[in-house]
Amino acid sequence: MEFAKRVSWLEDTSMVEAFDHQDAPGMISFAAGIPSAETYPLDRIRESFDRVISEHGKQALSYCSTLGYLGLREIMSERMKNKFGIEYGTDEIIMTSGSQQGLDMSGMAFIDPGDVVLFESPSYLGAVSALHSYQASLVGVPTDEEGLTIEGVRAALEKYSGRVRLIYVNPDFQNPTGRSWSDNRRREFMEFISDYDIPVLEDAAYGELAFNEVPQKPLAYYDKKGQVIYVGTFSKIFCPGMRVAWLCARNRIMDKYLVIKSAADLSSSTISQWEIADFLRHNDIEKHIEGITSLYSHRCDVMAEGIKKYFPPEVTFRKPAGGIFIWLSLPAGKDARVLYKKSCDAGVAFIPGTSFYPNADVHNELRLNFSNTTDEESDRGLKILGRVTEEFLSE
Amino acid sequence: MEFAKRVSWLEDTSMVEAFDHQDAPGMISFAAGIPSAETYPLDRIRESFDRVISEHGKQALSYCSTLGYLGLREIMSERMKNKFGIEYGTDEIIMTSGSQQGLDMSGMAFIDPGDVVLFESPSYLGAVSALHSYQASLVGVPTDEEGLTIEGVRAALEKYSGRVRLIYVNPDFQNPTGRSWSDNRRREFMEFISDYDIPVLEDAAYGELAFNEVPQKPLAYYDKKGQVIYVGTFSKIFCPGMRVAWLCARNRIMDKYLVIKSAADLSSSTISQWEIADFLRHNDIEKHIEGITSLYSHRCDVMAEGIKKYFPPEVTFRKPAGGIFIWLSLPAGKDARVLYKKSCDAGVAFIPGTSFYPNADVHNELRLNFSNTTDEESDRGLKILGRVTEEFLSE
Repeated sequence: MEFAKRVSWLEDTSMVEAFDHQDAPGMISFAAGIPSAETYPLDRIRESFDRVISEHGKQALSYCSTLGYLGLREIMSERMKNKFGIEYGTDEIIMTSGSQQGLDMSGMAFIDPGDVVLFESPSYLGAVSALHSYQASLVGVPTDEEGLTIEGVRAALEKYSGRVRLIYVNPDFQNPTGRSWSDNRRREFMEFISDYDIPVLEDAAYGELAFNEVPQKPLAYYDKKGQVIYVGTFSKIFCPGMRVAWLCARNRIMDKYLVIKSAADLSSSTISQWEIADFLRHNDIEKHIEGITSLYSHRCDVMAEGIKKYFPPEVTFRKPAGGIFIWLSLPAGKDARVLYKKSCDAGVAFIPGTSFYPNADVHNELRLNFSNTTDEESDRGLKILGRVTEEFLSE
Repeated sequence: MEFAKRVSWLEDTSMVEAFDHQDAPGMISFAAGIPSAETYPLDRIRESFDRVISEHGKQALSYCSTLGYLGLREIMSERMKNKFGIEYGTDEIIMTSGSQQGLDMSGMAFIDPGDVVLFESPSYLGAVSALHSYQASLVGVPTDEEGLTIEGVRAALEKYSGRVRLIYVNPDFQNPTGRSWSDNRRREFMEFISDYDIPVLEDAAYGELAFNEVPQKPLAYYDKKGQVIYVGTFSKIFCPGMRVAWLCARNRIMDKYLVIKSAADLSSSTISQWEIADFLRHNDIEKHIEGITSLYSHRCDVMAEGIKKYFPPEVTFRKPAGGIFIWLSLPAGKDARVLYKKSCDAGVAFIPGTSFYPNADVHNELRLNFSNTTDEESDRGLKILGRVTEEFLSE
């Protein structure tokens, strides 16, 4: 039996494994990038299901249009305007099955085998998988503290002249590093890239998880040519188990996504979309998000304290201002994949940084998730991981 | 801005349009292949949501494993054994976002540009879209009253020697023709194809919708080499708005689907899977399905009567023994796409048969759906369509 060539591009199963470790009993997991289940507003979610099924059950359990439930797209259109200052019509928003599907659809829309995709390096594993599976050549572009460097992008565009089909970025509290682009760099980058008719895939998964500050404006806010594809998700600000996310793009792009979505799965879960729309109509989602960020800010503090307390000083990190990840660096030459095995044996999981570098030989970093562990688990897990790391570094 | 080559293969938007017509106010639609919303057991669905969120809310609203919620896969494994006599382990079943996603994943798994896929001709539009988008060469194989002909398959395998990567079939109450393969042909086909290591994608969407008889054994039942990929769905036997379906395959194949699913959308809706599992634990789904088939059997009778009553005798059809479609043939040379425009203007939608022929020049057929119209609507719609058809044929 012969499989398609692209299947061999998908051999790296580290993402699947990350989720499996999550389920292993007794394991303290800093691995998967998942939100804290205790933030799910269970009672109000149940109320919304009750109301939707009682009042609109037949519609909410039927197929919906390919773009998604109009009532929800209307709310999202309003919200993108009020929260981020960007005007998208309801036909410029498509509801997807998680933001992962928006990334996958983008590979489907733009990538022929051998085409070049520019990435931040390191970058998000799920996007890497999705775009890699379309046989993209993944080219990492240097970043500094403010984001992707303009010089880096310019050099890559020159080197791969005419072959760059997509630029994938994750400008807010990036997965895996926790870093955000400066406002200035966002503006500068969009001005620079507007000279090229290349789509920019903006993964805003963590954009609403800013601690103690208002969210920054997305790249899409600075987009004058309609080249940004903005991907947002309810997974991090509500719950991931409904698999509801949204993708905004101007019509010349959305026309293509519409046929791709139809071929991929016809439409996303109708009932989940109605449920979320009902929740948004009856509850203050912004206040709900404040509750989440306040919890995560606290957990970030606890993790930062734990790292300082339990890890050898050669291990460095920078505390993020939002999101759900802390990125640790081991001394050069030390391989976090080896540490990972030892750590799992000791009952603590994380993700080795290697997986976030599509095409660079960097192995001394690791990603820790802080959103999903209690103070006690965090302290206990970091104590174990700190000890294992200390032993590993002194080997 | 340049799109991937495959995007131009997706230009045919007739499927998207079919769903749009469904929404047009005042339109009587025989177009989309959707179940009747009045069969949804709303009260019991609401009870299940209540119970799942009260008892397992945190888990049911979180991410689940890539294969899907284990509790549901356990039930499906039992059910595939009890209902169809096929043993699949829980790791040989993956939950997908509608059966459409199972078809799309199959294109992803097996099709490189230019590879050949064998199809029944005519065949299901959604599969055509999904596989077409991977730039497959679609080759229609002749069918007779018993199913795909062995001679036809043999000839195609010889003609496209070494290039055939997948065979897509829809053996039960086929979409669009409503025809089923005989038991004998199922056995004969599987015996013949077992000499080739080519995967057979069995779309069993309508397999459980037999009127007045027990469902036939799927092709998978006769599969001795592990080459069948079986796709089932809750859309037709429960409700489509949860987007929950399942795909069964042996491990050498499932290993690949697992990484493809992870890249596509991480996993399907957790809450929908828990909801369905709870429903299956607390209700007799087989009895529920009997209620559905009894309603559809009646509606099929009503539609068949209406056609006999209102259509000119040159229009022919065969009454199906299950499923949700009746397939009409106009006299040779008459184009159902032209009739479609006239019919829409008169307030009645259907799908012209052309869309179901990926690569044949056949235009004189049309598909009518009978599951989703009341007796009154069916009669009224057929009266209009019969009149429009009569006028069209006498032009």
